[in-house]
This record gives sequence, C-alpha cells and structure tokens, in this order.
Amino acid sequence: MNKPLTLGVAGLGTVGSGLLRLIASHADKLAEAAGRPIVVTGVSARTKSKPRGPETAKARWFPDPVALATDPGIDVFVELIGGDDGVAKAAVEAALKAGKHVVTANKALLAKHGIELAKLAEKNGVALNFEAAVAGAIPVIKTLRESLAANEVRRVYGILNGTCNYILTRMEEEHLSFDAALKEAQEKGYAESDPTFDVGGFDAAHKLALLTSLAFGTKVAFEEIHVEGIQQITAADIKAAAELGYCIKLLGVATQTESGIEARVNPTFVSMDSAISEVDGVTNCVALDSDFAGTLLLVGAGAGSSATASSVASDILDIARGIVRPPFVRPVASLKPHKRAKIGAHQGAYYVRLSVMDKPGAMAGITKRMGDRNVSLESIVQRRPRIPPSAAGDTTPTANTAAPVILVTHETTEKAIREALAAIESDGNVAERPQLIRIEEL
Amino acid sequence: MNKPLTLGVAGLGTVGSGLLRLIASHADKLAEAAGRPIVVTGVSARTKSKPRGPETAKARWFPDPVALATDPGIDVFVELIGGDDGVAKAAVEAALKAGKHVVTANKALLAKHGIELAKLAEKNGVALNFEAAVAGAIPVIKTLRESLAANEVRRVYGILNGTCNYILTRMEEEHLSFDAALKEAQEKGYAESDPTFDVGGFDAAHKLALLTSLAFGTKVAFEEIHVEGIQQITAADIKAAAELGYCIKLLGVATQTESGIEARVNPTFVSMDSAISEVDGVTNCVALDSDFAGTLLLVGAGAGSSATASSVASDILDIARGIVRPPFVRPVASLKPHKRAKIGAHQGAYYVRLSVMDKPGAMAGITKRMGDRNVSLESIVQRRPRIPPSAAGDTTPTANTAAPVILVTHETTEKAIREALAAIESDGNVAERPQLIRIEEL
Repeated sequence: MNKPLTLGVAGLGTVGSGLLRLIASHADKLAEAAGRPIVVTGVSARTKSKPRGPETAKARWFPDPVALATDPGIDVFVELIGGDDGVAKAAVEAALKAGKHVVTANKALLAKHGIELAKLAEKNGVALNFEAAVAGAIPVIKTLRESLAANEVRRVYGILNGTCNYILTRMEEEHLSFDAALKEAQEKGYAESDPTFDVGGFDAAHKLALLTSLAFGTKVAFEEIHVEGIQQITAADIKAAAELGYCIKLLGVATQTESGIEARVNPTFVSMDSAISEVDGVTNCVALDSDFAGTLLLVGAGAGSSATASSVASDILDIARGIVRPPFVRPVASLKPHKRAKIGAHQGAYYVRLSVMDKPGAMAGITKRMGDRNVSLESIVQRRPRIPPSAAGDTTPTANTAAPVILVTHETTEKAIREALAAIESDGNVAERPQLIRIEEL
Repeated sequence: MNKPLTLGVAGLGTVGSGLLRLIASHADKLAEAAGRPIVVTGVSARTKSKPRGPETAKARWFPDPVALATDPGIDVFVELIGGDDGVAKAAVEAALKAGKHVVTANKALLAKHGIELAKLAEKNGVALNFEAAVAGAIPVIKTLRESLAANEVRRVYGILNGTCNYILTRMEEEHLSFDAALKEAQEKGYAESDPTFDVGGFDAAHKLALLTSLAFGTKVAFEEIHVEGIQQITAADIKAAAELGYCIKLLGVATQTESGIEARVNPTFVSMDSAISEVDGVTNCVALDSDFAGTLLLVGAGAGSSATASSVASDILDIARGIVRPPFVRPVASLKPHKRAKIGAHQGAYYVRLSVMDKPGAMAGITKRMGDRNVSLESIVQRRPRIPPSAAGDTTPTANTAAPVILVTHETTEKAIREALAAIESDGNVAERPQLIRIEEL
C-alpha cells in the first residue's frame, strides 16, 4: 500500500463531524478508491471539550487552525470553519502558500475571495477543491469541470437554498403564511434564528456566483448578481400560482446572453409539469443547459452533515489520486471578466398581483399603463373584495376596500413591466406595492 | 503546448459523426481543458463514400477497424461501432493489447465482455472509459466511480431506455395504444423497425448490468437481471395508473438486499408526486441511493448524436489529463461475484388488473385466493361490464362478458402475489392473463 494521505480538518461542526464519521466508517472503501489510506492527523475546532468520534482520538489537536494549515504532518487542509473572511481565509491562504492542497465547503469565502485563492493554489501547484460548497451532495462542480468540459454552457439554474425551498414547500402544502413556515423551519433546524442570509437569497447567490464562473469561464463576481429573497411571497401568491399550474421556487439563474451574463436569484413561477417543480423541502437541484449535452438536471440533498461530507470526501479522493485541476476550470489568467447583461433586457412572461383600489377607473388606469409599455395580458383574474379586519362582519364596502387582481402577462421585457408597475403605483390605483414574479419556461 | 492526444475513431454513425462535429467546433475548448490538442488521426467506418465533416479530411482512412485500433499513430481508440461481439470486440481487444486507451459507447459489448476487457485494460495500464454507454449525456459513470466513491451505494434505478419512455409518455398523454405509440416512435426514428431490443427491456438491462457492477463492486452479470418489457402495457393500465395517482415507467432497479442483489427491468407504477414521474419522452434518468450522499437523481438526454458525443468527449478529456482508473471502480481481482437475491422476496405493493368472468362467485373466489396467501387489498375498483364487439348495441350481458377489475395490494411479497394470480387463473375466474405491475416508492 502506498503512503497515506494525511488530512488536517479545521472545523468540527455539522460538516466536520460528518466527515470524521465517514472516514471512520468507510476507511477501507476510501483506501481502495484512493489507492492509499486516508488519515486524519490533525484537527482544530473552536472548543476542544466536546466529545469527538474515534478519528479525532488519534489526531493531534491544534488550537490554531492556521498552525494546522501549515503543519508538516498534513498533505491536505480541509477547511470547514465557515465565514467569508477571518480565520477561515487566513488558514486557507496559509495552507496554499505552504503547498498544501485545500478542500473547502465555504461558499461565502470562495464567492468573495475565490479568484485570489485560485491564483495562490495555481502558483503553488496544489488543488483547491470545493464540491461541497454548492448544493451539498450534488456533484455539480465535477459535472461542470469535467463532464461538460467539451461543451459550451448556455445557462445554469437551480434551487440552491434548502431553507427557502422548505419554506415555500410548506407554504404550498399546508397553506401557511411565510412567517408560520419560517417559524417551522427554525424549529426543525432548517433556518437560523436570524434567517436573512438564507431567506434573503444571499446564500443562493454565493453558490450561483461559483456556478456562473465554472459555467462560463468568467471571474467570480458575486456583486454582479441581482438578489431577491422570498420574504415578500404571500399565501395569496402561492395559491394563485397553483391555480395557474405553477409553483413558486427561489431559483438562481445565470444565462449567457448576447449582451453579457444575466445572473439573478429570485422567486420564480415554475410549471408544475417540470421535474424541478417536484424538488421539494430541503432538497436542492441544479440544471445545466449546454450545446452538446443538452439539459442535465441534478437533484439531491443540498445540505446536512452526511451529504456535505460525501462531497468533501470525493474532493479528497481526487487529490489522493494525484489529480490537480485549475479551481475554476481554466487558469485564472484565462478567466474572462464577468460582463453583466443589459439590465431589464430579459424577455419573459410575468405574474403580477395587485391590490386594486375600489374606485371608478382604477382597472382602466392600470390596463392603460400596461398598454402604454406594450405589455399585453394573457389573463386577468379579479377576486371578490377583501374586507379589512376593522370591518369584519360588516359587508358594506368601505372607502379603503381593495380587491386583489392577478395578472399574467405575455412575453415582455422586465424594463417594460417594471415601468408600468411604477406608474400604476404612482397613479394611486393600488393599495400596496405590486407583487411581480417571473415565469420561467424551464 | 504539450504533444497532441491522437484519436482513432471507429464507427461514424450517429455518435461518431456527433463526436467529429464536437471536435471540429470545440477544438480550442478541448485543448484548453485537456492541456493539449485533441486530434483525430484515423477513422474507420463501414462505407467510405459518405460525406464526412472537416475532421475526417485530415484523418487517415482505415478499412479495417482492427488495423486502426493498433495503429502507432493513435493514443486512444474510440469504439463507436456497436454490437456485443464481432469486429467491435476484436478491435477493442486489439487496442487494449496494443496499449491504447479505449473509449466506447457500446453497452452491449460491456454487458457481455466487460470484465475480460477490464482485465485486459488493467494488465496493459490503460483506460477503458464508457460514460456514453449508459444514459447518454448523464454523467452517471463518473458520479458512481468518483463522486460516490466514499459511499456505500444501496440502490440504483432509473429510466434507462428512451424508446420505452417515449412510448409510455405518448400512451399517457394521448391515450394511444401500445401499437399506435410504437408506430409513432418508429416514424420519428426513436424505435427500430424490429423494436424488440428496446421495448423488450434488453437495452435497459445492459445498462443496468453496468450500473449494478459500478454501484456494488460486483462483476458484471447481465444474465442475472430479470427482464420484462412494455409490450403488455395497455391503455387501460395507463388510465388506471393515472386515476390512482401514478404513471407507468420502465425502470431498471438494482437493490442490495440482505440475501443478495435484486436487479430487474420492468414496468413500474411511479407516484406522480415524484420527480421521476416528470421525466418524459426520450429523456433518461438515474437515481443513486447511498449512505452518506442520500439520493441523487440525474436527468438528461439518454441518446442522440450530440448528447452521447459529449460523454465520449468527457472520457477522452480524462485520458488526455493522464487519468486512468479501474474500469469498474475496483481492480477486477477485487470485484465480488454478483450474488442474486432470493427470488420473490421483494416486499412491495402491486397493481393487478383482472378481466373477471361475469359469473356467480368469481370475485369471491379471487379474493379468497388473495387471502390464502395473506395478500391484503388496499383498493378494489370494478368497472361496468365491457360489451364484446359482437354484442355492440345490445345491453344484455352475455355468457362471455368479463369486467375489468383493478386491485391494489398492501405490501406483500412477489412470491405471494404471483402464486395467488396463478391460482386465480387456473380457477377459470378470469378471461385473460392477469396484469401485474409493481408499485415502487421512490
């Protein structure tokens, strides 16, 4: 048997403990697949006191992850600390500079510093692998880097955040409000006590930034991604979607267009006839449209201790076999800059929910504003007037009564529909901000 | 730039022409991904006369694929001839013996001779890559070999034949009979004039044999797979399935059970709530259940010139980067024998369609036979009597009248339900052979 591959594992939280469990339970399998034993020789975590698995008993303890990262006893530094700066970054940089291979699940770090870290990895001839950073167990990085390497990728999209998908699924299944579904997700451990990072779409945007770079051969550009979260999605939207044959998913979508890359994370109407509409709960999926392979859809566990550990282990195995590739497919020097597509140029159909004031001419004013921008409507559904809470039991409409109206547009540009809605709002024909959601044909 | 990787391509049909197109249109992309140019230096096909793409103009013509396979001018022999023996086998063997890497899309050859060819590849230190042999563009071989290498795989299943899936989809969408849907598939070029190989389930079984070996580390054992085709599926079955919330798919399923491996290809009831139920037309999918990664579902084009060429190209790129792995994950010497699970041990629910004779005591006799084998029924639906064509317009039941009855069982063993149905048939209570279809919870 060849010389073992030695690992230093920093961070023993959800993913780190999963990795140690995997290594302990599948040592023979790993050794066979790698052609050499895989051994954890050093570990580091915030607190030493917690009980660890059998693997850590044999490993040296490092209070400082940076010291572990550069220790002569390790071949590979496995960064599972998290955070887009601070000690995670310091340790990864130190490891790369010391000529250690790095495996990380840290999407925030890579979305922010991926290119400089890739440069460092290249300069030192080592691997920087991050299969676990995007969509948990789904092998999307390998698929983009290797399986589709002979393809021109045109679009990458997917459900990249399990917290949001869980919330939207529960809203759909149980007719819950956003707040009730969020509370449930928090109770189940699927959402943080401060959920902004997930429900605001930022976590999905980190992952989309990495996928965009891999798909189009461009520099990672998190700041170029348009991000909308799911906080504004109401039970009324979910219900209207279902009636129209759609469900609502938070999608990350990056498309190569004539004017540049359009990359966005936003709630989206997805047809119930699509496979993606069946991706429920904390499950993630990624679809890749390319010229020769067509559309590939990969579905799987997007997070969790075991699922993420599986991807970390697959990255380690590639290193054990001596495979070192440029982290973002091409060498950093040949990555193109991320050129953003013209804003508002997206063509598509839209769902609009308006709270229309119960006054003469309101609907006429609204449809005129649409017509002025050449936005034509596929359907208009007006519901019976909503009774304000103060008037419960009183069936006489009041001056404040507004009726929900659902519009579905024909294909139009985002610019046109946004301008029309701004005009409608300033006309005073609606009682609240209009809801606007894209309909994607996937 | 490094020395080019030279290819000899044998077989210029659907896949071969797609590969030449891919190489011609993406030469720069390939060179970048491989770190060296990829050049076709020799080609071979049944007839030289047909017009070829620009790539073949520069390549030498070989009337004999075996001569091409051993030509000193090639590094990699790409076998796209097809057939489970004959010239394809001779050429692949010759190439491996001559120390050439081999890339093939030939599932029939590998299902029959995979192990001996893998041994030859190992002995000569070369690659035998076959991503294109299973499920077209879907990177399932790479996922099993690499991404899930740290996992214990428990089950692999999928829609592995596009012809069958197209036929079943059309039967469902348009309420066509099997014969009408087959005819349409033939007209569209999705089915051969002799469709037995596809509709009989044999093509799916070849692919399942390869997946089973990769998933469980066992020797390829095509002959151990239970194969049923879709020829017996009727419009009545499709309709009943829809009413029960299912669709019918031809699935290949291999499961690691306590008594061994259960590997089978058969029509299956799949819940309409599952993502797999949305995989329609010629699209394929493969699901992989494993201990750490959970369930991964991969969906994509299962056949076609471009899609298959993409997988061939990805195999070539791995070789260009110097990556040589054992063809079936482990060295042949450490592959376990395929041990078949006990027959009839499968536990599950079943759909049964009976044509029950219109005579006193028939249903009582049927339910008694079920009860005798402890098969309990979840539902019984009896339709109004079918009027035989000779009696059209006459509403008086005749002695020959039989009524379709749909049964859904609770969980039972395959042995029990098959015995019950055999007894029911021999009792003379049914007018035709009972239809039995598994219901899989996926």
